[in-house]
Amino acid sequence: MDDAPSSEGTATGTVSLVGSGPGDPELLTVKAKRLLEDADIVLHDKLPGPKIIETLPEDRREDVGKRAGGERTPQSEINERLVELAREGKDVVRLKGGDSFVFGRGGEEAEYLAAHEVPFEVVPGVTSAIAAPAVAGVPVTHRDHASSVSFVTGHEDPTKDDSAVDWAALAATGGTIVVLMGVGRLPDYTTALLEAGMAPETPVALIERGTWPGQQVATGTLETIVDTRDGEGISPPAVTVIGDVASTREAVVEFVQNDYETPAENATEE
Amino acid sequence: MDDAPSSEGTATGTVSLVGSGPGDPELLTVKAKRLLEDADIVLHDKLPGPKIIETLPEDRREDVGKRAGGERTPQSEINERLVELAREGKDVVRLKGGDSFVFGRGGEEAEYLAAHEVPFEVVPGVTSAIAAPAVAGVPVTHRDHASSVSFVTGHEDPTKDDSAVDWAALAATGGTIVVLMGVGRLPDYTTALLEAGMAPETPVALIERGTWPGQQVATGTLETIVDTRDGEGISPPAVTVIGDVASTREAVVEFVQNDYETPAENATEE
Repeated sequence: MDDAPSSEGTATGTVSLVGSGPGDPELLTVKAKRLLEDADIVLHDKLPGPKIIETLPEDRREDVGKRAGGERTPQSEINERLVELAREGKDVVRLKGGDSFVFGRGGEEAEYLAAHEVPFEVVPGVTSAIAAPAVAGVPVTHRDHASSVSFVTGHEDPTKDDSAVDWAALAATGGTIVVLMGVGRLPDYTTALLEAGMAPETPVALIERGTWPGQQVATGTLETIVDTRDGEGISPPAVTVIGDVASTREAVVEFVQNDYETPAENATEE
Repeated sequence: MDDAPSSEGTATGTVSLVGSGPGDPELLTVKAKRLLEDADIVLHDKLPGPKIIETLPEDRREDVGKRAGGERTPQSEINERLVELAREGKDVVRLKGGDSFVFGRGGEEAEYLAAHEVPFEVVPGVTSAIAAPAVAGVPVTHRDHASSVSFVTGHEDPTKDDSAVDWAALAATGGTIVVLMGVGRLPDYTTALLEAGMAPETPVALIERGTWPGQQVATGTLETIVDTRDGEGISPPAVTVIGDVASTREAVVEFVQNDYETPAENATEE
């Protein structure tokens, strides 16, 4: 590929759609680390986490998570910025928390880049949906407990008629349900799952800032987890795991050596 | 932690349950790469893929995927071997393809280690369930197409009464369905999904050996994909993606720069 900038607006740089993993810099892939080191510019929001973002030189990164005033940058602006930078001949990394293609709008970015004839590369990351529970001792599948696992976002409002998530169907699968960004709407979807007939004693785990400094974990049941969330002060970003696998933590946590949780938090929680 | 071997059978080594990612050595996490370099011994099967396995020195690895005669090593033997090695004071890496906790039996290994008081660490990997489709231009979620994604294994027999996977419930979620290890039973579960009322024209993509040398991709619909599988000669290991997201590949593949697919295979397929 020709790396020289073009004056005709033809794309000569490339865009890499890179997943950062859950936040621990050691859970970046080897490829993500290399691309971040070599990029002319990195477009990111807050979800890759402070430990990864602080390694990026300030003159080679743009925070596209928020605009001045606090609203989110519209996706259309991010799409346009990616094309603009690539057409300037830049090698651009679009860095998303977890994996770009799991509720990260990477699919939309890929389509926009292709429609504008900008070559791009997809670099999958470790998704927080699996990793945050894992380091807390919760496997999202287990031969004895769950033969499927479903991932959804908690951003949808389950009380709206046009909510895209069918909680009753998810409950009927009998598998583990993992909700990303689901702290605020926890009361809504736990109610929806109970109304769909899921057992009140179904184990639930909340993992806040998985693999970030100050990771917090709280466990309960479908019936108690809202109180637990409030009592333990669990706040976003967090992952919710619903299903029998959530009880695995209790059996294993004493021997899990991942040191993301501080002893004090462990002591409160256990 | 004390690294000296103990003669009393007390665990003094540690076990790291490490996901290898889908197979490209650059999609190992930084941590996985470091642990593989430092391990006294690596227990693995074939799924991490040839590119990763060939980097492990022969005197520091054990293939626990198959026993002489061709059968699989029972999980109980692997569990016992992990404890035995840790009690010898070894730092052991248990390396699984993708992520250990996504149909990788990592949960069982974690429970066994904890029950035997062996300290362990969980090192999540990039799951093939997301990464293999991603590098082929298929995002498993998409704001326009899928607000949930479910992962299942194709090992279950859907014609058995006690099949643990409820294909009708999965179809009812309206989200993407990703089937791991689902080449052989493709006729069974596509039939089950059609019988559950899923549209025959639902897009389906098969990704064989995602990110391995010689990756192959075939696309079709719920109705045509079995013929496509046979015509294109798709064989295990492969990931099946069922849902509207599978059609994204067509729109973007020309601009995807990941070079896992050989040009010849691309030419045949497109």
